[in-house]
Amino acid sequence: MQRKSTPTMKDVAQEAGVALGTVSKVFNGIPVGDSYRLKVEAAAKKLGYQVNQYARGLRANKTYTVAVILPGVDHPFFASLAQHLCTALAQRDHRMLLYVTASRPDIEQRCVTMVQQNRVDGIIGLTYNPLEVNEELPFVSIDRCFSSDMPCVAADNYSGGRIAAEKLLELGCRRLAFLRTGSVNLGETDKRGDGFEMVCRTRNVHYDAIRLRDGESLELFREFFQAHMSGGKIDVDGIFCSTDLLAWRVQGILQELGLRAPEDVQIIGFDGIRRFGSESLYCSTIVQPVQKIAETSVDLLLEPDRSKVPSLVCLPVSYAPGGTTRE
Amino acid sequence: MQRKSTPTMKDVAQEAGVALGTVSKVFNGIPVGDSYRLKVEAAAKKLGYQVNQYARGLRANKTYTVAVILPGVDHPFFASLAQHLCTALAQRDHRMLLYVTASRPDIEQRCVTMVQQNRVDGIIGLTYNPLEVNEELPFVSIDRCFSSDMPCVAADNYSGGRIAAEKLLELGCRRLAFLRTGSVNLGETDKRGDGFEMVCRTRNVHYDAIRLRDGESLELFREFFQAHMSGGKIDVDGIFCSTDLLAWRVQGILQELGLRAPEDVQIIGFDGIRRFGSESLYCSTIVQPVQKIAETSVDLLLEPDRSKVPSLVCLPVSYAPGGTTRE
Repeated sequence: MQRKSTPTMKDVAQEAGVALGTVSKVFNGIPVGDSYRLKVEAAAKKLGYQVNQYARGLRANKTYTVAVILPGVDHPFFASLAQHLCTALAQRDHRMLLYVTASRPDIEQRCVTMVQQNRVDGIIGLTYNPLEVNEELPFVSIDRCFSSDMPCVAADNYSGGRIAAEKLLELGCRRLAFLRTGSVNLGETDKRGDGFEMVCRTRNVHYDAIRLRDGESLELFREFFQAHMSGGKIDVDGIFCSTDLLAWRVQGILQELGLRAPEDVQIIGFDGIRRFGSESLYCSTIVQPVQKIAETSVDLLLEPDRSKVPSLVCLPVSYAPGGTTRE
Repeated sequence: MQRKSTPTMKDVAQEAGVALGTVSKVFNGIPVGDSYRLKVEAAAKKLGYQVNQYARGLRANKTYTVAVILPGVDHPFFASLAQHLCTALAQRDHRMLLYVTASRPDIEQRCVTMVQQNRVDGIIGLTYNPLEVNEELPFVSIDRCFSSDMPCVAADNYSGGRIAAEKLLELGCRRLAFLRTGSVNLGETDKRGDGFEMVCRTRNVHYDAIRLRDGESLELFREFFQAHMSGGKIDVDGIFCSTDLLAWRVQGILQELGLRAPEDVQIIGFDGIRRFGSESLYCSTIVQPVQKIAETSVDLLLEPDRSKVPSLVCLPVSYAPGGTTRE
């Protein structure tokens, strides 16, 4: 068998019938027309051309590696985010280093420190605590705004809360409640309640808002329901929960009190989590655009012109019925 | 303020009152007594000593980076596996590069090729297709045995099937069925049915086994149930499904036929998946030791003496009641 010399980018350009610059763009993840990209990819495959990432990284002083810091991937929302971040980075020819923090401030800071000791092109993080970050290293934050220098990507949580309130009213509810649990640190997700309350106030609807913090018992919700019950009925007829997980737990409490959703009370959650990751929804919910959040985070991180990067991007959410509302 | 010189490992050893070798072991993830480790960590923290991973990697010709290749992390079993792999690697002072393949052979091979172009210390992969792997690069396979040179880590699927059959018989079932869907490629997980059938044959129990492959419709299961129904009752009283997801889908089909679990038929799944990653089980199930699978995979990958690495390690599973059996 004749030994062939290793094909070069020039060989690929010739084989594909395109300019060398086009080949370079394709291999560097810079958008070109689909027909060009397909030609280049076919030619590269035919010739057995392989991009040497390591050599390329040394040349460009780039690592083509991004660190992703998440509380974990065992919660389905974070799992979905990790999945879409991995795909979005791969599409831009980048690799993903994953770090999990269990939401602990010490581990979060340790991850950031570790990442900064290594060579990566940037960090995408969903963290619950303020971090000391090297300003030289691009950082995109998901769901938390830390400073105006650090871009934050989130779902449009405020509109989500607004949509939930409007939907419950449209479905005939007259007395609403907003229930929340979560981190003591304020973040973008707290706007869910703000949007909900704004609609209630504007439209003069009677409502309660109960905000629990991590560690506080859900028993407080049970006591709230019991205080609103008489003769086996409850006078609260529409509940917006800050997450799908909370909506699921609240359904359990209501069931124990002999109440059913949507017959006795309608419930809307937030996140859009599906059973087994891709099956049916757990409840009627405000769906987060997870794929779009991931893609936008990657785009902002890799944007070479930092002056073009906004401090906050909120992406549109949508309502989806999931059995706990009258559609 | 007086400018301090950068602290060295020697400074840390002096501060901690331990030998230099102990400090080196701690920073290289080699086990030492907890009291020593804590002393070294406290001293390093006090002095502001930071391990330079990159310099360390250059010295040792190691990258302290491992590539993990999974079909995805949106399915809760894979999410849990990714989470535990990330934690197990971090505990051994390694970073995790995550690649997702959507089970597509072309993407699986592309990931392996990409990983081999980069500098990593090894690969841990759960892939559905035979791969061309550079023999120099340590590779641990999860759930699939590709060759005797490549160690495979899996749950003890055969025992899991055996336990499921024995449990159903113990709970009073007299006529059993094994239902399976999944990849056309044989893997360790196929032993679930083998273990189940072995018990049925040995104990002379009447049973059916229906194995569907990816793409075949679950309608075949519905037809099987209908063929076994008469007067609203079904003569099959115990079902073992190859996964929790399938058990959940089968429950839906049975419900549509007016049958309930565990009243009319008892069901056991396989995996041990929990709602929202950490809430209740979906069904009675054989629980995979996910954390142990992750830790064992990492240990085998990082074992410097390859002659000590076995070709297959099966880790013990356990039964957990989850509402679809009479306990």
